[in-house]
Amino acid sequence: MTTIHAFAANSTAGELHPFEYEVHEPGHDEVEINVIACGICHSDISMIDNDWGMSQYPLVPGHEIVGTICATGDGVEHLRIGQIVGLGWYSSSCMTCPTCMGGDHNLCLQNEQTIVGRHGGFADKVRCHKAWAVPLPEGIDPKKAGPLFCGGITVFNPIVQLGIKPTQRVGVIGIGGLGHFALQFFNKWGCEVTAFTSSENKAQEAINMGAHRIVDSRSDDALEDAAGSLDLILSTVNVNLNWEKYFGALAPRGKLHVVGGVLDPIPAAAFSLIGSQKSLSGSPLGSPATITTMLDFCARHDIEAVTEHFPMSNVNDALEHLRSGKARYRIVLDQPSHTH
Amino acid sequence: MTTIHAFAANSTAGELHPFEYEVHEPGHDEVEINVIACGICHSDISMIDNDWGMSQYPLVPGHEIVGTICATGDGVEHLRIGQIVGLGWYSSSCMTCPTCMGGDHNLCLQNEQTIVGRHGGFADKVRCHKAWAVPLPEGIDPKKAGPLFCGGITVFNPIVQLGIKPTQRVGVIGIGGLGHFALQFFNKWGCEVTAFTSSENKAQEAINMGAHRIVDSRSDDALEDAAGSLDLILSTVNVNLNWEKYFGALAPRGKLHVVGGVLDPIPAAAFSLIGSQKSLSGSPLGSPATITTMLDFCARHDIEAVTEHFPMSNVNDALEHLRSGKARYRIVLDQPSHTH
Repeated sequence: MTTIHAFAANSTAGELHPFEYEVHEPGHDEVEINVIACGICHSDISMIDNDWGMSQYPLVPGHEIVGTICATGDGVEHLRIGQIVGLGWYSSSCMTCPTCMGGDHNLCLQNEQTIVGRHGGFADKVRCHKAWAVPLPEGIDPKKAGPLFCGGITVFNPIVQLGIKPTQRVGVIGIGGLGHFALQFFNKWGCEVTAFTSSENKAQEAINMGAHRIVDSRSDDALEDAAGSLDLILSTVNVNLNWEKYFGALAPRGKLHVVGGVLDPIPAAAFSLIGSQKSLSGSPLGSPATITTMLDFCARHDIEAVTEHFPMSNVNDALEHLRSGKARYRIVLDQPSHTH
Repeated sequence: MTTIHAFAANSTAGELHPFEYEVHEPGHDEVEINVIACGICHSDISMIDNDWGMSQYPLVPGHEIVGTICATGDGVEHLRIGQIVGLGWYSSSCMTCPTCMGGDHNLCLQNEQTIVGRHGGFADKVRCHKAWAVPLPEGIDPKKAGPLFCGGITVFNPIVQLGIKPTQRVGVIGIGGLGHFALQFFNKWGCEVTAFTSSENKAQEAINMGAHRIVDSRSDDALEDAAGSLDLILSTVNVNLNWEKYFGALAPRGKLHVVGGVLDPIPAAAFSLIGSQKSLSGSPLGSPATITTMLDFCARHDIEAVTEHFPMSNVNDALEHLRSGKARYRIVLDQPSHTH
């Protein structure tokens, strides 16, 4: 038996408190990760607050985890004790359905999610299926890598899935935890990059991260000036926008792709889609193979999260900072034994 | 000067009456087509009725035209007098914008539309740019080929654009002028084909045309039974449906593609798109190159419209038959000199 020392919310929207739980030996295909650091994603707050009606308490958040393998099940051969890995939103998939067999483990309908009905990474240890503990390559700083496993892969995955080319013109709506990765990815991918933001004081930072152009995301006039100019618009926000104007900002064959979980349906006029062959699409986080591709790309291009660090014991301060909208751009909780 | 003898609506939703207009010598890149036959599309009625607010009267409908080249401008070298060609919704494109230069003449923003601000194919003759007069290959019956140039290419184009594979499972909503082509195309393409129809008496015909399975398009229960089963759903209808159920009928990576001009926006829930990487898209008719590809495919697989024929002089009876919803499945107007 191992005792895991975590932080949990005991009720909806509650403060986090120290929480211990015990686990048996790792299952056949399971690994145990000694947490070095864990990013905080907006989805952690959505789960603490039970925004999606699927939270179970006590709830241990945390799904942007980096740590070292500290125990493995009998069926784990490709990972070794001490190896540094990351773990994101998904912690297991069935491995044998047609979707998994096709390499789309992230779309497996039997996927386990790291903080849904199980305990996540605001802890000293966390468990997952071996397939979802993805090794960090050389050249990636483990202290800052956690956010790549949710915020990062969520915006990297569409680039791969949609077959975006370096010659294309892309836009990113929302320059936050996800968007600040997207700007870096698209810039290094070779694209012409437009940042849509409602925050004037993020404009210069967006340019530093790779944007070539800034457009006010709330200005209908600015959106009209951008009409017909973009091959892809990637929305990372979860608020209602003037979607019709964004469809208008797409070039022929343009794609509006959402990764932000806006709750109201997006109204898509058939004539807006038909005339210039446009589309509206969405995607979740990427597969383990796509995560590996992303990590290699980050190592080669020096892409990393812009982070603010809190000791994990100050998790409530960190959550309050995120709730205030002041995080620039991703908060990471450090485990004390690993603090610089 | 040439006098063209046509049928025109003189006012919104009016009956058609004989109408003559004169034209000069064909322009440099223009051709004149001696009409053999012209299909009737629902868009002709939409234009007669000014449903889209862009009709100009007198309005000569007709954009599913087959005929012989009878005059050519000085710049026309690849077509010869007497050659049989077809002409659809588009009658000209700029030929030099990046979209045209990329082969997407159908997406050219300067496209001319055969019955918008100019006169169409309910006539003995019609003019168009040489690029949009697409030669019929051997093995295609000119009398029945007109509908391929609008109804046919509208549903063939998405198969090409979306890269549909013969191993995929597809659904077609609406078994009418467009849908009856789609069933034939998808069947010969090698796909597993589901027909969604609200018309019980079309079920057997849909199977004869290539459907492997029939689902009642208005039944929520039937749609739920189809959950997760289709890689593509192609909607040819212009009415509101239970779109959420159709998103649910898509498999992971599934696409809901609309070619029917439904007027109300389609509500697309972000979570319906994100979880299983789904999309909603649309497209217009295809490029001349895609039309040529379609015609070759039709000739090789004996695909043709199921038609009902009226002499062009009975155009008002034909329109009334279409308005009544009784057309099975495409009405064609024959020019008397070419009637069997």
